[in-house]
Order: sequence, then structure tokens, then C-alpha cells
Amino acid sequence: MTIAFDGSNFGGWQRQKNSYAVQQAVEDTLKKILKKRHTVTGCSRTDAGVHANRYVFNFVTDSAIPCYGLFRALHAILPADIAVIDVAEVDLAFSARFNAVAKEYVYKFQNTTARNPFNCRYALHIEEPLDERLMDAAAKDFIGRHDFAAFRASGFQTLTSERTIYAAGVERCGEELRFTVTGDGFLYNMVRIMAGTLYYIAIGKLRPDSIPAILASCDREQAGKTLPPHGLYLNRIYYDNTYDYSKISRPRPAALLMPHHD
Amino acid sequence: MTIAFDGSNFGGWQRQKNSYAVQQAVEDTLKKILKKRHTVTGCSRTDAGVHANRYVFNFVTDSAIPCYGLFRALHAILPADIAVIDVAEVDLAFSARFNAVAKEYVYKFQNTTARNPFNCRYALHIEEPLDERLMDAAAKDFIGRHDFAAFRASGFQTLTSERTIYAAGVERCGEELRFTVTGDGFLYNMVRIMAGTLYYIAIGKLRPDSIPAILASCDREQAGKTLPPHGLYLNRIYYDNTYDYSKISRPRPAALLMPHHD
Repeated sequence: MTIAFDGSNFGGWQRQKNSYAVQQAVEDTLKKILKKRHTVTGCSRTDAGVHANRYVFNFVTDSAIPCYGLFRALHAILPADIAVIDVAEVDLAFSARFNAVAKEYVYKFQNTTARNPFNCRYALHIEEPLDERLMDAAAKDFIGRHDFAAFRASGFQTLTSERTIYAAGVERCGEELRFTVTGDGFLYNMVRIMAGTLYYIAIGKLRPDSIPAILASCDREQAGKTLPPHGLYLNRIYYDNTYDYSKISRPRPAALLMPHHD
Repeated sequence: MTIAFDGSNFGGWQRQKNSYAVQQAVEDTLKKILKKRHTVTGCSRTDAGVHANRYVFNFVTDSAIPCYGLFRALHAILPADIAVIDVAEVDLAFSARFNAVAKEYVYKFQNTTARNPFNCRYALHIEEPLDERLMDAAAKDFIGRHDFAAFRASGFQTLTSERTIYAAGVERCGEELRFTVTGDGFLYNMVRIMAGTLYYIAIGKLRPDSIPAILASCDREQAGKTLPPHGLYLNRIYYDNTYDYSKISRPRPAALLMPHHD
């Protein structure tokens, strides 16, 4: 299943004790529809306040309800800040998490002198004009296989901090500046620190060519600050060909498309 | 002063006991800036959850802070869901409420099969396709001087329920359908009932030519339902020429313009 959600009122994707999680909203809704608790596997953790344009999760069920029926029921019952985008039947071995081969994130800046109160939950407002060409050129330095230890929230360890970035760029879309980055995986807070580093470059706190040296330093202190979650969107998940679910027939009308831009 | 606000988290404009009002946010901010409590006069009451693209209020102060300084301070201190659009010095006799000669409202429908979770606070989601030409033609029947008793929340009385509508129309703007209406004044819930009546016409619950008869009936039961507040925007206030504050010089940079579309 693919959903879009406004993360403003959720404590992130993952079910937890002290706040309402997207996973919980989804599982509660599935229980109403399928009359049985199902545990879903999400493609990724997301932090509190982070949004998703296309979040993928899967679950195993013996229900006879066809995909389209499930789609309509989810559409009717999910809270207004979660939208169902797609429902497809997949191989039993499919895992939304482990079969993901790449993830794409977008970080949005509302880059206007005036505040837009209707966008305050959906983009980080930066008053000073940011030069998208300068930021775009700097973003290209992220591309490739690198140790991203300098771009990880301090105190978080993983087996390796090497990741591959396939694409990175900054473009202006009306009032917004958007940093889009695609990679095989991301460390904790990595996109928000990458965005913060590009922001520091734009305002002159870091030199335009500083990213290679920051990567080489493996030192979190060298990179820019961690930007707040409300500008961040999990935009898309890529799966290996075995599970390329775009090839699976889905019984849904063509009108039921992604409601939001990429 | 002109502000824009996202009404989602406010109990309307007017200061009240049981919820946080926009007026209170504004007065609290002014107190921080001017070190003294000022009571502001708003152009209109708005209901809980209703938004404003350009809301006007005024107050009297002996502060020596120039308009632009006040503008910058408000910009810095107001909550993120309120934006200051304009600050101007006006005649002492000016009242944002009593000098208003016309008001313009917009009611927004998100008219797509798929839900857009990022617009769920800002437009009423209606799945079935609405015919904007049909609704636009019907909306023209509101224009003119009429008794709008049928378009008033039941139980609310005013001296007269006659109002003049100067303009009314429906147009499609991408995913949205927008009903825009301008008049010399509006009864309680009037725009939301007008929008609900056009919606009923679009879905065939009322005939396309039914508005004149509903007006003539003065019977609330004949009109469509009251649509929810989150689709409604106070869009603009018109003042008489004496106080046409667009003619007053305002020391602000041209970039500080209305952040949101009309």
C-alpha cells in the first residue's frame, strides 16, 4: 500500500507509547475494515512532523476483500491527514522495508520575505533570498559513495555510515526552494543535516565548495545544523525489479493518482 | 493592520474564554512590542477554523514606533500561522469594523477523487466531480439586494436580514473549486449556507434555478446545508473612499506582499 500523509500531528511513522503514530492510525483503520489486527511493515522510520508524499507499507492477510475494496474502505476511514494512493497485491515474500533499493526525500524552504501562514507546516520559512544555483552546484558534491558520518545525528551508530547518493539537486518552484536527494539509504537526520549544510552555504556560513572536506572529516561539527522536520518529505521509494509493483495490475480508476506534486 | 491567518488552531477572531482567539494572539504580541495592552478593533467576527487572506484591524496607540518597525516586530513575534501583510497609519476616526463597506469571502472545495492530505485543513474535500459552470450560473442568482433569512443559521436574529451581494461566482483553480462572493455584509453562517446550497445544486439535491425561490421563502430549511468552516476564507475588506488606505503611504518594501493567492 502507498499512502501520503501530513506528518504535523503524528509522532512519526512507527508505533510508540507517547504519541499517535501513522502506523497506529493505519493499523487501527485496517482493524475496522478487516475485523482483525494486522501488523504492517513500513518502508522506513520517519521522525515526528516529517511528511510523506508516497510512503509504502505491506502486510499479510487472508482477507478476501479485493484491492479496490480495500482502497475504497481505507479512503473512507483513514483520518483526513492520511490519503491512500495505491493498493496492490504483491508476492508473499515482499517487504516494503527490505526490498527498498533507494529512497527519495525532498526538503522544502518557503523562501519569501513575507510569511505564508498556509504553508507554515509544510516548508521551512527562510526570509533571506537563497541562491538555488549555488545550492544546486554544492548539492552535486553529495553524489556518489561516501562516508556520511559528518551528516548523522551525533550519538547514533550504525554498522556502517557509508551510503550512496544517486541524485541530489536544488530547484526553485514558485515561492519554494526544494532540495531533492535520492540514495540507497540515509543515516538518522542525514537529509535534514544535508539541507542545513546547503542552507549554511547559501547564507555564507560555509564555503560553496566545503562539502567534500566535511565528508572527509567525518565530524558532525563541520556540517550545517539539523533543519526542523516540517520541511521534510519522504517522496518516493524505489524497489528492485522483482517487486516493481508498478508492473502489477491494480484495479483502480486512473483518476486516483498521487494528489501532491513530486 | 492587515494580517493573514490559518484559522485551524484558533477559536475564531474574537477574544473568548474557552479557546485561543486570533485577537488574543495579536493583542499579546502587541503587548510585547508596545509594553502596554492595546485593544484592537477587528473588521469582522470569524468562526473557529475559518481562515483569512486579508483581515483588517485597527488600534489607537501613542507609541512612537513607525509603521515599518511595527511591521518587522509583528513579523518576528506573531505565531507562524499568522502573517502580517500590511501596516498603515490611518485617521484617528477610522474603524476597521464600521468603515468597512464590503467584504469578500472565498469558499474552497478540493474537488478530486483522491484526497490531498496537505490541503485537508484548507478546502472541503468533495469526491464527486462538481460542475463549476452550473454552480457559477446559480451563484449569479445571489447578486442584488435580497432578504437572506433563508441563508442564516437558525436562531440568530439581526435588525434586518436584507443584504446586498455585489458579485458571486464559482471557478475552477487546478484541484480546487472556489466560490467567491462580495457583499455589503453577511448574516451568521451565510457564506457557508450559500456554498452548501451551490453544492446541493451541483449534486442534484436542489434544482439549478432554485435560489430565487429559496430567497423568497425566507425559510432556512429550503437552503442547502452549512458547510464546515475549514473551506472558508475572509478574502478582502473594502473601505469607503475616505479611508481607502491603499492611498496612504506605507513605508514597506515592495517584496512584502500578500503571500497567498486571492
